[in-house]
Amino acid sequence: MHNPGSGNQAAGVLRLKKREERRILAGHLWVFSNEIDIQATPLKSFDAGAPAVLESASGKFLAHVYVNPASLICARITSRVKPKPFNVELLEQRLLYALGLRERRYGLPYYRWVHGEGDYLPGLVVDRYNDVVVAQITTAGMEVYKDDIADLIVKIAGVSSVCFRNDVPIRELEQLPLYREWVAGTDPGLLKVEENGLSFTVPTELGQKTGWFYDHRESRFSVREWSKGKRVLDLYSYIGGFGLNAAKAGASEVMAIDASAGAVEAANDNAKANGLSDNFRALAADAVEHMRELAQQSAQFDVVILDPPAFIKRKKDRDAGMRHYALNNRLAMKLLAPGGILLSASCSQALDLSQLQQVLRQGMPKSAESLQQLQMFQQAPDHPANLAMPETLYLKGVIARLL
Amino acid sequence: MHNPGSGNQAAGVLRLKKREERRILAGHLWVFSNEIDIQATPLKSFDAGAPAVLESASGKFLAHVYVNPASLICARITSRVKPKPFNVELLEQRLLYALGLRERRYGLPYYRWVHGEGDYLPGLVVDRYNDVVVAQITTAGMEVYKDDIADLIVKIAGVSSVCFRNDVPIRELEQLPLYREWVAGTDPGLLKVEENGLSFTVPTELGQKTGWFYDHRESRFSVREWSKGKRVLDLYSYIGGFGLNAAKAGASEVMAIDASAGAVEAANDNAKANGLSDNFRALAADAVEHMRELAQQSAQFDVVILDPPAFIKRKKDRDAGMRHYALNNRLAMKLLAPGGILLSASCSQALDLSQLQQVLRQGMPKSAESLQQLQMFQQAPDHPANLAMPETLYLKGVIARLL
Repeated sequence: MHNPGSGNQAAGVLRLKKREERRILAGHLWVFSNEIDIQATPLKSFDAGAPAVLESASGKFLAHVYVNPASLICARITSRVKPKPFNVELLEQRLLYALGLRERRYGLPYYRWVHGEGDYLPGLVVDRYNDVVVAQITTAGMEVYKDDIADLIVKIAGVSSVCFRNDVPIRELEQLPLYREWVAGTDPGLLKVEENGLSFTVPTELGQKTGWFYDHRESRFSVREWSKGKRVLDLYSYIGGFGLNAAKAGASEVMAIDASAGAVEAANDNAKANGLSDNFRALAADAVEHMRELAQQSAQFDVVILDPPAFIKRKKDRDAGMRHYALNNRLAMKLLAPGGILLSASCSQALDLSQLQQVLRQGMPKSAESLQQLQMFQQAPDHPANLAMPETLYLKGVIARLL
Repeated sequence: MHNPGSGNQAAGVLRLKKREERRILAGHLWVFSNEIDIQATPLKSFDAGAPAVLESASGKFLAHVYVNPASLICARITSRVKPKPFNVELLEQRLLYALGLRERRYGLPYYRWVHGEGDYLPGLVVDRYNDVVVAQITTAGMEVYKDDIADLIVKIAGVSSVCFRNDVPIRELEQLPLYREWVAGTDPGLLKVEENGLSFTVPTELGQKTGWFYDHRESRFSVREWSKGKRVLDLYSYIGGFGLNAAKAGASEVMAIDASAGAVEAANDNAKANGLSDNFRALAADAVEHMRELAQQSAQFDVVILDPPAFIKRKKDRDAGMRHYALNNRLAMKLLAPGGILLSASCSQALDLSQLQQVLRQGMPKSAESLQQLQMFQQAPDHPANLAMPETLYLKGVIARLL
């Protein structure tokens, strides 16, 4: 074991302004820089990632945090128990709690092991692909524990390879370097995933998220219930997760569309490997342009899956992003045969479920009588949301039928 | 076939006040009495259940409706196509559309065939138990078609028995009589349900809803994923639907609680019939009192299922109902072992998902670190919600884990 991280440093004090503790007391884990009494406790006196004690304006202990003076989220809570500041022991305990949930739910070791704030490990994501683990640290406060995290992952799960995919732009907000590093084992070049009786192979260089979107495991499976004998369109398909579930359920025809040629090649390879290439075909195309072409040809599908990337990544993207959701959903519904089923998802934190429902309502074709909501869903259970932090419920989706 | 209902009567005109058409144009099916220009078109000139044409203040055609001058919801939309007023042909078409959804989704003929506004058949609910159908009419406008509905059910599905359970108090709002009538076949005394590999027998005289709560089929099944080898508490269990799914998944111990001695007896009988009585036990008790007793004994469960009846049935019940949800959820969480799972549901229309989440957040035990939302769900797909009518999304639930 390496030396423990900042848990051993003497912790400074960060004091809130008056009446700023309500959200914190209700269970939220983030402190924003405009909530700090910077006269009393200047943020710039802290190093990025330094531990601190968070106090109310009246000097009452609230929580242990780690600080980043450069970030809008200037502190994240790591413990609310005064005698138990965050340290390597607490890190190990939380990794074990998180693993307990996944092992209870999933038969095979393919899952998101740690989901940041949802597992009370802010700034850390860990995805497991059997004996390969891909982790991602997004905050300076968690970066301090990087070596401990690597050691604990190997110690707890006995895996052979651990990679830090610390190359996401969000790290720049924390003034952290971008890099990719195999801290145990070597790059296998391919990640293998077993899911719902299908096998997927993901080239590691494809590089969306840590390689696989575990957050749609359950919703991918639910597509099977509507797909037998049906024509299915899988938009923004990546390597075909939704579409291959539909093919597995006996869809008569699956068309998968993704802008990335690499993803499309992987999708077709995965179809072949699962013996499903007869009724599955992936094409490299822009989803919006391709939907327009299909509409011009009066093409119709019984099931359309619309799972786009986050169109609203930052506040300033909001208007353009909303227009893009509206356009995509409107075009997708145009391609539905009568009684057709639309699975529409959004992974934009800023678009909540009721807004997604509104996008659907407003995008209904003029000729449609009504839109039935048959199911709603969130990210998979290995991506727990923190009930006190609406921000952590980032993925939401609806399955609807057009009459 | 009987004579068609009111479709052949000459339809009167119902005119909205200025600027009251927005909700209607957005797809809502209800018209409230305070939205009507009663100077121009007096409501009291209509018989209960009479057809009418709904117009905007400027005289523009909006929809065909049926009227009930005695109800707050004074009209419900039955068609938006001017040359196609609601009639027996349209009724048959909608019954067939509705059946198409269920047959596509479910392998066996056990489902809610018609879910009122969600299937564009306002005021009508039809539950199917293989060759027995139990229907319920809740509006005067739909009562007009009672004989046609019975005929069409037999014609379309070839079932042997059809009952109208027209004995719900809500009919009094429409000034309709309360009665129960077998219009085809005779009361079999027992309803049989096949669901998720379990068989349930429901004595028809138990009388909650039409006999079975199909709306929780998927959520009952999802309990299996958390129950293997676990101690499970099933509150407000009725005849044990949730608990027996847990037992089927290998729960070490299931305790089911319901206030009705008849439901408890049926639950224990169903446990026996499914070979699950070794690890399942139903008790007649008040849920709140029983939770208090269990807490005093420091009893702990790995899974607690809290699916109470609607505590908020009318606006005036709101405050008392909210307190009751809060009390129940707080007590249920007290009984969770560390890492325990709570399935918390509400079928009160007036309590939306975010309010249920708030009830959970505020009811967390003081000692708990955080509450993880693992899953959210709505009523089953054979209870489609109308996306333009938030009121139709009446059932919502959350699966959460306490840390």
